[in-house]
Amino acid sequence: MYDFLRELFPICRSITGPGLRETIHRIGTRIPLTIHEVPTGTAILDWTVPNEWSIRSATIETLDGRVVMDFADNNLHVVGYSKPVDAVLSREELARHVHTLPDQPTLIPYRTGYFADSFGFCLSHQTWTAMTDEQYRVRIDSTLAPGSMTLGELLLPGSTDKEILLSIHCCHPALANDNLSGIVIATELAKRLAGVSRRHAVRFLFGPGTLGALTWLSWNQDAARKVAAGLVLTCLGDAGPYHYKQSRQGTSATDRAVAQVLADEGEPLTVLPFAPVGYDERQYCSPGFDLPVGCFMRTPNGRYPEYHTSADDPSLVRPESLERSLDILEKIIAVIDRDATYERVDGRGEPQLGRRGLYRLVSGQAGRSTSQEALLWVLNLADGRHSLLDMAARSGLTFQSVAAAADLLLDTQLIREMSQ
Amino acid sequence: MYDFLRELFPICRSITGPGLRETIHRIGTRIPLTIHEVPTGTAILDWTVPNEWSIRSATIETLDGRVVMDFADNNLHVVGYSKPVDAVLSREELARHVHTLPDQPTLIPYRTGYFADSFGFCLSHQTWTAMTDEQYRVRIDSTLAPGSMTLGELLLPGSTDKEILLSIHCCHPALANDNLSGIVIATELAKRLAGVSRRHAVRFLFGPGTLGALTWLSWNQDAARKVAAGLVLTCLGDAGPYHYKQSRQGTSATDRAVAQVLADEGEPLTVLPFAPVGYDERQYCSPGFDLPVGCFMRTPNGRYPEYHTSADDPSLVRPESLERSLDILEKIIAVIDRDATYERVDGRGEPQLGRRGLYRLVSGQAGRSTSQEALLWVLNLADGRHSLLDMAARSGLTFQSVAAAADLLLDTQLIREMSQ
Amino acid sequence: MYDFLRELFPICRSITGPGLRETIHRIGTRIPLTIHEVPTGTAILDWTVPNEWSIRSATIETLDGRVVMDFADNNLHVVGYSKPVDAVLSREELARHVHTLPDQPTLIPYRTGYFADSFGFCLSHQTWTAMTDEQYRVRIDSTLAPGSMTLGELLLPGSTDKEILLSIHCCHPALANDNLSGIVIATELAKRLAGVSRRHAVRFLFGPGTLGALTWLSWNQDAARKVAAGLVLTCLGDAGPYHYKQSRQGTSATDRAVAQVLADEGEPLTVLPFAPVGYDERQYCSPGFDLPVGCFMRTPNGRYPEYHTSADDPSLVRPESLERSLDILEKIIAVIDRDATYERVDGRGEPQLGRRGLYRLVSGQAGRSTSQEALLWVLNLADGRHSLLDMAARSGLTFQSVAAAADLLLDTQLIREMSQ
Repeated sequence: MYDFLRELFPICRSITGPGLRETIHRIGTRIPLTIHEVPTGTAILDWTVPNEWSIRSATIETLDGRVVMDFADNNLHVVGYSKPVDAVLSREELARHVHTLPDQPTLIPYRTGYFADSFGFCLSHQTWTAMTDEQYRVRIDSTLAPGSMTLGELLLPGSTDKEILLSIHCCHPALANDNLSGIVIATELAKRLAGVSRRHAVRFLFGPGTLGALTWLSWNQDAARKVAAGLVLTCLGDAGPYHYKQSRQGTSATDRAVAQVLADEGEPLTVLPFAPVGYDERQYCSPGFDLPVGCFMRTPNGRYPEYHTSADDPSLVRPESLERSLDILEKIIAVIDRDATYERVDGRGEPQLGRRGLYRLVSGQAGRSTSQEALLWVLNLADGRHSLLDMAARSGLTFQSVAAAADLLLDTQLIREMSQ
Repeated sequence: MYDFLRELFPICRSITGPGLRETIHRIGTRIPLTIHEVPTGTAILDWTVPNEWSIRSATIETLDGRVVMDFADNNLHVVGYSKPVDAVLSREELARHVHTLPDQPTLIPYRTGYFADSFGFCLSHQTWTAMTDEQYRVRIDSTLAPGSMTLGELLLPGSTDKEILLSIHCCHPALANDNLSGIVIATELAKRLAGVSRRHAVRFLFGPGTLGALTWLSWNQDAARKVAAGLVLTCLGDAGPYHYKQSRQGTSATDRAVAQVLADEGEPLTVLPFAPVGYDERQYCSPGFDLPVGCFMRTPNGRYPEYHTSADDPSLVRPESLERSLDILEKIIAVIDRDATYERVDGRGEPQLGRRGLYRLVSGQAGRSTSQEALLWVLNLADGRHSLLDMAARSGLTFQSVAAAADLLLDTQLIREMSQ
Repeated sequence: MYDFLRELFPICRSITGPGLRETIHRIGTRIPLTIHEVPTGTAILDWTVPNEWSIRSATIETLDGRVVMDFADNNLHVVGYSKPVDAVLSREELARHVHTLPDQPTLIPYRTGYFADSFGFCLSHQTWTAMTDEQYRVRIDSTLAPGSMTLGELLLPGSTDKEILLSIHCCHPALANDNLSGIVIATELAKRLAGVSRRHAVRFLFGPGTLGALTWLSWNQDAARKVAAGLVLTCLGDAGPYHYKQSRQGTSATDRAVAQVLADEGEPLTVLPFAPVGYDERQYCSPGFDLPVGCFMRTPNGRYPEYHTSADDPSLVRPESLERSLDILEKIIAVIDRDATYERVDGRGEPQLGRRGLYRLVSGQAGRSTSQEALLWVLNLADGRHSLLDMAARSGLTFQSVAAAADLLLDTQLIREMSQ
């Protein structure tokens, strides 16, 4: 995963354009994506797909030809969707187009202006304060023209008509944790899940933030109802502890599964309430859809100093952090897929476990085995109103242990699954 | 307000009588009250309007003519509704008619006996212990005779059929904080609100405790259903921090608005749960009505040492406390009046704020403006199930800020108000 | 009670057999039990009544005839339901049939193997480690043969069709706190309650754990719906503080009454959430029944070192602990029996208490009598949706005080009881 992240890092992505397209095609060499090109001008709910933005080069030079800023060094140097320019500007005029971070003077900020019809440069504050000439020659060789917006989609089928949605934004240029970490983990997860049979389909959606999610939602307004759980994946490669931003519902299967898995794994987890600021959970949780989609992260957006700066580079991401996030996600998917609601075949009283080989034969000990306890909890809560996630939460047992108990009780025909 | 409070202080009010009548008429010189005289004997739900009580003078004298207690000095000296008496009593007989506060020996207590058919005197314990003669001449020149009970009512109209009820008891004699503070603040509030257009009507009810509220309720059993929020106003002039006793419902618009405004104002607030002891919230929250009426106070009844004693005089009340309470109340009324529930015109996904001038054009900054956040919260919670008060509580933003966002979104036709 | 406990202690009880039968018959000499004998082979829901187990004697001897273990000394020495044996076993073979407590080396453990088709001995670890011969002669003179399982039942009638179920397991041999304490307290409680008229019937069920409860449930599947509250009684004789394990519902009348009574009595109480491990609450709270039955204890099963060992003998039980538990239980039954829901005869506004003699005649004091407050709370919450237990919980007053207020208000026809 870390190698793929380093491979993708230099590409200049935006919400459209060749960088986004190349990124999605490179993902598509690893997993069988369906790739959509959505033409400029397409109406997407309240929005319209904008012109495609291509950038080839950009520089700021002194009038005597010394290059003080070159897009080739770092693609954060140009504000996303900057229109072409080739002019000599006074330092004062230029200042109106320059973004810096005075508090982090060595870092280049990340800025975009998708609908601004302007141009801009992002510089380290250090560089900018050292630029004391009266005039500079600025050049951006870019194109804003009809084209298309690229989306990549993969549906791993299941046996029910429900699906788990994983949404990954791919519109950030050279930023590693946000969100190349999400891209490479999702790609690897898709490879792992491809060979596994499961109940619920798993859908991966790679595309630009906001418009990508809105496009999928607008195309799938009925299918959206099939989404039983979902996660936006981002900021999963740093060394920080896990954070989960809840879906708007706050008690969805996603919300409960993430909390359960992290607890079972002994991983510290900070649960953040839903707020309509952040990533594409904003769109999935907008009132007309209100899907059970949360956002899974290590250190959240805006809470690490490298966020949206040139310091969010591959050195911030650790291979073992990517690996652990992948493992946790696989377990979350497995729990959501395994969760089900049961009822007792004969719900009256405790059944005789002993004659089914499910009971220790000599009783009276003060200690009890956990699996014995799990059997009794599942039998007690198999009333058609509690799912395995509910049972784990109420009993304090792991999901694994109640699920194993449910398997034994299904085998011995003491419980049966409720139809979905 | 403070001058009006001092003007009203010497008047001897009770649940009927010339003092109550004069107080309400003086309020009526400031705001256009409708004055009701409810005749003695009128049935009011489970009650009957009692005889009207008038008192002209009362003294206790030594047998050699030295006045040891004079009603003219302090109208707390006579128990409310004392019947006339002119007799020489032994100290022992007199003791059965005397109330003192041994723990606060310099203060005169406040006592009433509306239905006691007796008479009584309230003395400082100091005075009483110094009265060592064997006999005293006691005189009360009072009348208990058919008359009427006076109520004052003012309805400031609104454009909806809902109303906000403000109820102020006026039956306490020379007691400043309880409840001349409520009377003068309500009078001033009525003047302020008179010139303002609003959605909900605001009703002011001035009258005696218990019977005043019950009279209005019995006359307006259908209209009571229009009460969307309401407050009993008392003890609002001392220097203490605010206290709000919730309505019986505990989650009414009043309950939420008071908590929101005090939080937004940075005013410490102690919220007390409803209990059927206290002021007229007892009547408004009785099970047959169960109106959303709480009680707004600074230091609550019974929790300050001057409560119901001669020390609750104008020196306990601070002009700036009255002023601040008035300001807070005006804001509470404004919030209740402004609160509304919205739905998105197109509820699917986030709308494009930029093309409506509602979005900062260059994005990517870690910081966000509060108003941006408020727009997104209102758009997300405009689902027909959340009012602005709910939005403020869930988002942690001020009411002001979500209301301003809602105004912008109404202007741009992104949300519409739900019919009430 | 303590004498009866000592009388029952030496009897060897199990889930069937002469010891169980004798115990129930001795209870039946004190209270008028209906005794059921359920034949071996009877189907009970998922179970079948097993063969009856009788044991006359058991020993382990050295080959030279020295008795190292004698069932006559302590009936815990033989694993319940051990089949007969008469053999010489090597120490190694014997070890597979021996249970000890290495951490409590002087105590004999309690073990059963109802369905194990085997035999076993329980020894102190001290005794076992001192047994160093190569071979031992082991004898168990027992019978496993068709017979019956004994249950004792007593219904004290009430005037409604609801009942309070008290369930006491009687299947433990020489163990005093678990559960001779429950047996003797329930017996005494039945005597006390027999002479008292009440609203709800009280049913006492004495029998073996699990199968006793399941038998009653299987025979009374409709009647079970009449159970308005219920308790499993055990571990009530030690010196520890009270513990209450909630019914599965968690908010049942039983759950609320136990908490209320213990609070009113100033008795510390630890409330444990329901779990499907423990005593017969497992059966009553199984999903097909889900009855409001909790478990009332002092120190819970498994939480005292003497639990299920020979140290759970009469010296662990204190007469005053039994007495206090009995008193508390009587109060719990009384509260459940007294609990009712009321509505105001005229629910609008506070009624005039004074003319009914329910109000202090001279008012104005800061202090209020509790009974005055209780009257106002009951009047306020008599809305058909709050029972006396709800009123006590919301007001913070004792059940006694709200019930007394309700009695006064019933007498004065201000409230009326809702039909059940």
